[in-house]
Amino acid sequence: MSPDKGMIRVAIDAMGGDFGPEPIIEGCIQAIDERRFQPILVGDREAILSFLPQYYLEQVEIVEAGDVIDMHDQATNALRRKDSSIYKAVELVREGKADAVVSAGHSGATMTLATLRIGRLPHISKPALATLMPNVNNAKTLVLDVGAVVECKPHNLYEFGVMGEVYAQEVMKISSPRVGLLANGEEESKGNELTKEAFPLMKKIPGFLGNVEGRDIFNGSVEVVVTDGFTGNILLKTSEGVADAIFTMMRQEIRKSLPAKIGALLMKKKVFARLKKQVDYAEYGGAPLLGVNGCAIVSHGSSNAKAIKNAIFQAINYSESNVNKKIEELLIRNNGAQD
Amino acid sequence: MSPDKGMIRVAIDAMGGDFGPEPIIEGCIQAIDERRFQPILVGDREAILSFLPQYYLEQVEIVEAGDVIDMHDQATNALRRKDSSIYKAVELVREGKADAVVSAGHSGATMTLATLRIGRLPHISKPALATLMPNVNNAKTLVLDVGAVVECKPHNLYEFGVMGEVYAQEVMKISSPRVGLLANGEEESKGNELTKEAFPLMKKIPGFLGNVEGRDIFNGSVEVVVTDGFTGNILLKTSEGVADAIFTMMRQEIRKSLPAKIGALLMKKKVFARLKKQVDYAEYGGAPLLGVNGCAIVSHGSSNAKAIKNAIFQAINYSESNVNKKIEELLIRNNGAQD
Repeated sequence: MSPDKGMIRVAIDAMGGDFGPEPIIEGCIQAIDERRFQPILVGDREAILSFLPQYYLEQVEIVEAGDVIDMHDQATNALRRKDSSIYKAVELVREGKADAVVSAGHSGATMTLATLRIGRLPHISKPALATLMPNVNNAKTLVLDVGAVVECKPHNLYEFGVMGEVYAQEVMKISSPRVGLLANGEEESKGNELTKEAFPLMKKIPGFLGNVEGRDIFNGSVEVVVTDGFTGNILLKTSEGVADAIFTMMRQEIRKSLPAKIGALLMKKKVFARLKKQVDYAEYGGAPLLGVNGCAIVSHGSSNAKAIKNAIFQAINYSESNVNKKIEELLIRNNGAQD
Repeated sequence: MSPDKGMIRVAIDAMGGDFGPEPIIEGCIQAIDERRFQPILVGDREAILSFLPQYYLEQVEIVEAGDVIDMHDQATNALRRKDSSIYKAVELVREGKADAVVSAGHSGATMTLATLRIGRLPHISKPALATLMPNVNNAKTLVLDVGAVVECKPHNLYEFGVMGEVYAQEVMKISSPRVGLLANGEEESKGNELTKEAFPLMKKIPGFLGNVEGRDIFNGSVEVVVTDGFTGNILLKTSEGVADAIFTMMRQEIRKSLPAKIGALLMKKKVFARLKKQVDYAEYGGAPLLGVNGCAIVSHGSSNAKAIKNAIFQAINYSESNVNKKIEELLIRNNGAQD
């Protein structure tokens, strides 16, 4: 394998994820078939080779790692588990041997390692996990933070807003994204202590339009929604829960009636399949951890091959963009404006 | 009209709500047709009479109120607007002339007035707004607080848990409700400062099963979910937003294909109508404000007649139950156990 200059190098934690290396390597293969990049699979070499067809062998680099951090391990131990696949994958970015890291493993460990080993961007106090949620405009809304910073300070929310706006511009290619602060009402007087204190800081963000409510994530009235990691995590899981419950209730009702069964069959391909595609997280890939001095994509533990493929594409798009540089520039510009 | 001893007397704010008196009076009429109770309509007598058929005139009491607090007014002014329909309706409960109050008007004003004029139950620091959400077991999950107390202390969450458990037992008739504390993960170590401090207090609640996540509201694994009013309000509006978005996306896809249109027609009555019934807030009526020394039901501003009817039924069921007495008893028992 001869390294190709200018190709984005993506370190992939081959061992993380609920289903072992198989869907991860399969996702990597699908990504190779569709786009040019340099994959670096990190994990147990034998396990990786058992799932990797000969044909792809010369296109991937393999980095050996003897340990795996699993879901039941404490994130705080991650720093000591230096032979783990996620530790080694993160180190490749730190050492400049990879541009991005993708992991479907222990998300707490991934976030801890990316933050502490790769390090934060200048002027960013805490990185935020950003996720895409579908809206009725057949587009996506970026929501952050969804779980990295459970206990936030007002300036954290401000930084999240800056990072979200720049990500929407540079990676999602939305020229003037609207940024909202999630609260219990749209009026400026609404909010808890945290959001009320964050509000005046948020005004420095060019696209800031004020407080938004939970429903605005889905109705297409805003492109970026800022919240603390506790609330964001709850709203993410609530949304998944509502969608699952609606589909379950629908199946329960369809089962009870023959005309409904026929109706469902007629709607299957045209409606349900497309709807599933719109709400399926596998289509989104993973959640970028914004604010690290590099690129880290955190994927769902139960990611299938398609989710991994899309997470790799996210990592490539992120690394090809100027998002980190632009975040720094906007923060410096705003700081200057303040003085 | 001769007052019937033992009949529950429900004061209904006839002027509150986005659509004026019509759906409220229509809902009251539907309630009269189905159940025995004493309705007291509070508002502009002429407006009320214009929507009330002669036949019902002798079954309802009318209390004149010359003022209406609308959605754009500040809740803090509510105490001074003594001629408003909601103020007068609340006063009827305070004076013992009604057992319960139902309002689809300004919810902040209703909560402020109910809390300050009717007063709190002994041992309750702050009342909580409790709402019912559908789950896949074809049952309901009680979520509180969804907006009364934006800035909570740990003991508020504990009290919410006690009130939720007792409401589930006494009004929802669930003998052993499971009570969960909403957090960003199920492990006891998860949560923000507030929930971590509330956790040990919550252990005094008989049905407490630990932390739960957003999706547990809908999957039937818990009957009562406790959270602060900021998070609860956001999750409520997020849930409504997800459900609306799914139905909108479905309609968008159905419109694009003839077989899908036929399929949708076949599913309309059997599936969509029933599903709508399960997720439609009109079926639930309103949200009881638990912790006031009486009964106050806060209805959605856009309530239709059916929602008002169901809110009245909720008020009757609440008033017929021992929920307030049992809340006090459980709090005293727990306090005793602590000493």
